[in-house]
Amino acid sequence: MRSSILHLLRQHSGDYLSGEEIARQLAVSRTAVWKHMQELKQEGYAIDAHSRRGYRLRQVPDLLLPAEIRSAARTRRLGREIHYFTHIDSTNNEAKKLAFAGAAEGTLVVSEAQNSGRGRLSRGWFSPEQLGIWLSVVLRPPFSPQDAPKCTLLAAVAITRAIGSVCQVTCGIKWPNDILYEGRKLVGILTEMSAEMDAINHIIIGMGINVNMRSSDFPPDLRPIATSLAEITGQPVSRLKLLTAVLMELEELYQAAVTCGFTEVLNEWRKYSVTLGQTVDITGINRQYSGLAVDIDEDGALLVETATGIQKVLAGDVSLRPKKTETKRE
Amino acid sequence: MRSSILHLLRQHSGDYLSGEEIARQLAVSRTAVWKHMQELKQEGYAIDAHSRRGYRLRQVPDLLLPAEIRSAARTRRLGREIHYFTHIDSTNNEAKKLAFAGAAEGTLVVSEAQNSGRGRLSRGWFSPEQLGIWLSVVLRPPFSPQDAPKCTLLAAVAITRAIGSVCQVTCGIKWPNDILYEGRKLVGILTEMSAEMDAINHIIIGMGINVNMRSSDFPPDLRPIATSLAEITGQPVSRLKLLTAVLMELEELYQAAVTCGFTEVLNEWRKYSVTLGQTVDITGINRQYSGLAVDIDEDGALLVETATGIQKVLAGDVSLRPKKTETKRE
Repeated sequence: MRSSILHLLRQHSGDYLSGEEIARQLAVSRTAVWKHMQELKQEGYAIDAHSRRGYRLRQVPDLLLPAEIRSAARTRRLGREIHYFTHIDSTNNEAKKLAFAGAAEGTLVVSEAQNSGRGRLSRGWFSPEQLGIWLSVVLRPPFSPQDAPKCTLLAAVAITRAIGSVCQVTCGIKWPNDILYEGRKLVGILTEMSAEMDAINHIIIGMGINVNMRSSDFPPDLRPIATSLAEITGQPVSRLKLLTAVLMELEELYQAAVTCGFTEVLNEWRKYSVTLGQTVDITGINRQYSGLAVDIDEDGALLVETATGIQKVLAGDVSLRPKKTETKRE
Repeated sequence: MRSSILHLLRQHSGDYLSGEEIARQLAVSRTAVWKHMQELKQEGYAIDAHSRRGYRLRQVPDLLLPAEIRSAARTRRLGREIHYFTHIDSTNNEAKKLAFAGAAEGTLVVSEAQNSGRGRLSRGWFSPEQLGIWLSVVLRPPFSPQDAPKCTLLAAVAITRAIGSVCQVTCGIKWPNDILYEGRKLVGILTEMSAEMDAINHIIIGMGINVNMRSSDFPPDLRPIATSLAEITGQPVSRLKLLTAVLMELEELYQAAVTCGFTEVLNEWRKYSVTLGQTVDITGINRQYSGLAVDIDEDGALLVETATGIQKVLAGDVSLRPKKTETKRE
């Protein structure tokens, strides 16, 4: 209902619309309209109310509110069910709980801030209030667990596409789960799954996108290695617009993968990769070695050419050797 | 403490031991000894108490009580922490909850009956009270998620070994998760995991072992396809002894896999397999086909020779073509 009211107010872009007219169009009482307006104001919408002229939407809050996401994202399943928080420990943790309790595919958890945002292998992820996009999506793919690592690559491609279209910034993907700009972290992706040996119960794709931080917003130790879209473009970026674009790209690529497999995703990943063609250091569970990253294979594993042959890297950490990585501003 | 009291009573195998002596050896008060004896009686231990002669252990209940398991299983980690139930929905569900709450590696969930015992792909598993072994173990292996399917094979080998040593019955393993005797189901294994893309959070190995059912205990639809150890051997089997043997074999194989990899497990699996050398029907997510099961590969995948080449089967169902499978009684 609130989505419908916002939709009507937006259609009149800044003009007044009478409570009577709204009530008529939505077939509810004028009291109901008034109540919803109060709630919208509480959420941060600047709505002018005039006794004769009616209501006017003056400003939408810079928050990732469910009603805004639902109205802006033309998706079929991703982000139809939204759990919104101003603060949360970690959106992935919340999404996991929801998934175990039976949450539908596409359920979105989004928070303005994370108190203990997580990256891979329990590392932290700096997630300050309203300066980034911190979200997790629940998927229930018909893939086997062996296909799960490719979902990280798929998410990376979706985010890279969305950043390209919304901000005209071309970034690079570092295998398997970071998106970089000039070697600095812009986006982290954390994919987690619950599975039987031959069927996935659910996959949680979590992402942290650094949007509107200035360099001074980052803790000192992160300043040399992290960046944000506002830093890159020199202007604030609409988090809502970017989030919406991410959801739409993600849904498109995911549906394609479910229907036709991952070939398109892997090809596009190769195009955006800043890992392929580089000398990489691999820190595995038990050993460490170096080699040339030559390709990814059909499982999404990194193929590294070493003195003793091609190594297939699935687990473990990859460091790129210090060298200027190729990224460009379009 | 109760384990220690039971240990003392057992050492005197049926003879009386004075409360004073027990109190002295365990450095507790006689009142404490008396209280523990009451608790043991409540759990079903038949303990004779005589005012002058003391206490005597006459009979141990046919239950899989934690004190019994701990005292009988010479394991270092598996089954040190035990969660015991008379009834539960599913031991795997309980183990999952415990694992998410931080349960240590080796934590064991055991129940006398399961109300909704689960097999693969949400199929049911008939788990009547005190007639089988229904348990789940929490593992936290340093493997990558790609190694997880081999944990099912490892559990199958451990159980096959334990059944061989306790009951002198040689059974066959049907890829990936059933143990059969003359083509009928004796054991099911359900392995579930929670993982990031390159690290396992935890693996739950659940197993249902049909021990003391007679054919008439099974629902009519299961009678032609299920069997129990009591049916095979013609006599009741000690569930405690078998459970203990399973835990010990499982720990031994698991430690070996953590230290040296899965080669030994895969070789032993091949030996027990009733799938290799058979024509199998594969029901995958999207397609169905037949072929000759020729081997398992280093990932634990089944290799099936078809008209169009060797297929690697990881997900999906395998049916053996109707044909007498080779199993024998030693």
